[in-house]
Amino acid sequence: MDIKYSTAANHLGSSAVREILKVTQGNDIISLAGGLPGEDLFPLEAVRNAYNRVLSSDTSTLQYGLTEGFTPLRDKIAERLTRQGIPVTASEMILTTGSQQAIDLLCKMLLDPGDAVLVEAPTYLAALQVLGSYRADIHTINNDEQGILPDHLEDQIQKLRPKLLYAVPTFNNPSGATWSKERREKIVEICRRYNVLILEDNPYGEITFEENKDLYPPSLASIDRSYGGDYCVAYTGTFSKIVAPALRTGWIIGDSNLIKTIAKAKQAADLHSSTIDQRALDELLLHFDIEQHIRVISREYYSRMKLLSAELKSQNWEGAHFLEPRGGMFLWLTLSQEINTKELLPLAVEHGVAFVPGEVFYSSQPHKNKMRLNFTHTPPERVPVAVQRLEKALVQWRESQSIVQS
Amino acid sequence: MDIKYSTAANHLGSSAVREILKVTQGNDIISLAGGLPGEDLFPLEAVRNAYNRVLSSDTSTLQYGLTEGFTPLRDKIAERLTRQGIPVTASEMILTTGSQQAIDLLCKMLLDPGDAVLVEAPTYLAALQVLGSYRADIHTINNDEQGILPDHLEDQIQKLRPKLLYAVPTFNNPSGATWSKERREKIVEICRRYNVLILEDNPYGEITFEENKDLYPPSLASIDRSYGGDYCVAYTGTFSKIVAPALRTGWIIGDSNLIKTIAKAKQAADLHSSTIDQRALDELLLHFDIEQHIRVISREYYSRMKLLSAELKSQNWEGAHFLEPRGGMFLWLTLSQEINTKELLPLAVEHGVAFVPGEVFYSSQPHKNKMRLNFTHTPPERVPVAVQRLEKALVQWRESQSIVQS
Repeated sequence: MDIKYSTAANHLGSSAVREILKVTQGNDIISLAGGLPGEDLFPLEAVRNAYNRVLSSDTSTLQYGLTEGFTPLRDKIAERLTRQGIPVTASEMILTTGSQQAIDLLCKMLLDPGDAVLVEAPTYLAALQVLGSYRADIHTINNDEQGILPDHLEDQIQKLRPKLLYAVPTFNNPSGATWSKERREKIVEICRRYNVLILEDNPYGEITFEENKDLYPPSLASIDRSYGGDYCVAYTGTFSKIVAPALRTGWIIGDSNLIKTIAKAKQAADLHSSTIDQRALDELLLHFDIEQHIRVISREYYSRMKLLSAELKSQNWEGAHFLEPRGGMFLWLTLSQEINTKELLPLAVEHGVAFVPGEVFYSSQPHKNKMRLNFTHTPPERVPVAVQRLEKALVQWRESQSIVQS
Repeated sequence: MDIKYSTAANHLGSSAVREILKVTQGNDIISLAGGLPGEDLFPLEAVRNAYNRVLSSDTSTLQYGLTEGFTPLRDKIAERLTRQGIPVTASEMILTTGSQQAIDLLCKMLLDPGDAVLVEAPTYLAALQVLGSYRADIHTINNDEQGILPDHLEDQIQKLRPKLLYAVPTFNNPSGATWSKERREKIVEICRRYNVLILEDNPYGEITFEENKDLYPPSLASIDRSYGGDYCVAYTGTFSKIVAPALRTGWIIGDSNLIKTIAKAKQAADLHSSTIDQRALDELLLHFDIEQHIRVISREYYSRMKLLSAELKSQNWEGAHFLEPRGGMFLWLTLSQEINTKELLPLAVEHGVAFVPGEVFYSSQPHKNKMRLNFTHTPPERVPVAVQRLEKALVQWRESQSIVQS
């Protein structure tokens, strides 16, 4: 039948890049595209034991649960966050289906069409899609190597009266960049002063590569809470990267009124997320040393990042450069100015390697000569081959360009 | 901080009834309010074995999955639906976090503020909330004991040009009513003719009380598909009532373009639902006789319904009446015209019994002398006490009224 979709549906346009990347699945293509953790590192046995314990209790385990999520798990997450410098209680938290749902529900409760929202550039693609679906008026704040620029932020706040600043200040997706402590303090101060809500999206913050953890800056949430009440930062995290994505369990914390409002949205959206998965994570946190596990995967991801970095450097591509990230899952590669990575992608896929072209991570004025490379998922022994295939694609792209020009 | 919420947030108003019902949790109150299946009937051991098998395979089980859901489970659901007279394939289906999410995502992709939507009265409360959050213009179609009235439907379609008819035609929540076969055929014919999408919400249809299953009418989806392509019915179901709610797994089928659009919405909403739960259900369907299980719970729910019915009849309340439902989870009790069940609720809770006042199930012109009673969750031995407590509350309410009048 002839269905007339909503304006929101028409703002969730399909992505040519996604269509290309779909082709990469199940083939002999080495994908550095997906934001996937390394499967070989999932704590399968501990997860199995956790589900077993959950399902060895009484049948009430299988009943409907609270919209806010399983309370003992919320308590444990709150304790971990408190140890990480974010003092919080379970009543200021709601569990979500991954942190993606936290982003969606917060935006739904906050944004009317045309409301101004500030973002970094580049930033998380699926957050831009959510903002687009609520028809936010998205504006980019300029940044340098320390993070977004306070002067530009203040200027844009005064001009646009935005409702929200969305940011991934730690090991940004896609750029891997991390804001400095001083910059964070300044940004929080400005947003508190102007009453602008910050959504701090922190899925990667626990995957750190440096030995001395004191060298990492505090979260925006931590800085915000050091002021005392009346929080301006909502903070979302997830078990997807530190345990496993399939359990789809994330959380959002914030001002308790905001959390209550998000809970109403969640009730309408899906009543609640899987309580079996939430109970299993609760059991996992009781019986499994998650801190040690995070150290293990962080060390392994560090060595994978260094391997990819070395392979890229050894290619010595003209004009190419990148900064090694201090944590997270992505390396952000800049190529020579004339190279269009979106045009490069189909050639790369032909040669058996995939990446995400940088331009999809910008809401406007995209940089076309960048690409996001994931280093956590591909087995290390395949990384040299992946980079060689990328080299072949680049050679072919240059040849095709010289044909065009001649 | 002072947060300015979205218009959608302001249309998800809090419910006085929900606040009262919150008080009933964890107390000695017998709740006939919740739409909860009987916990004693959950197939816990089979579910435990299913998770065990899932988590005994390789670590890729724990990786991100498809937005549309685990394909083998979609295949199995499609086979079951085909056997139930709804020929469908996995590509016309998306798995959701309960059928609640299917309702929400479909409405999000379809409705702009002010779009007309047709509903029955009474109807599912949380669907009204979803429609409200998208600021739909909700209109009620009149009904009789056969279902909604075709003439009124056609009249309203011509007048309002609605985008959607939302209906629970089988064992309605809250009324327990079921549309006749003839009425269903007529409604589908009209909606096809006028290009109006129907969302058939069928969480209860498999819980049947009559021996001869041929006496039950076909689903709207089945009638629609008998016409051939160009479907006008989207159909949502769930494992919540036939296996257990905690796994939060529902599905929606429909026109493949509609399903693709809903998949885009789901990707933005939460990437995908828990694949561990989906894989466990897939294993359950392989190793557990779900058809036999559904017969067992249906028989038990039938006997619980008959018990509640008998207890209510024995009270012989002046002006009270109800029809015994032919399946599902609810009995819809009409009291004498002057009784306001919302005013009765706090008295009932004081006496130790809870129900849902009928008026919350209407988008306009609520009937105030009705209540929804769930018969699946309360242990049978407590039902007589529950009804006696209701009697005490009624006596008290009548006394309070005569004081007001004197």
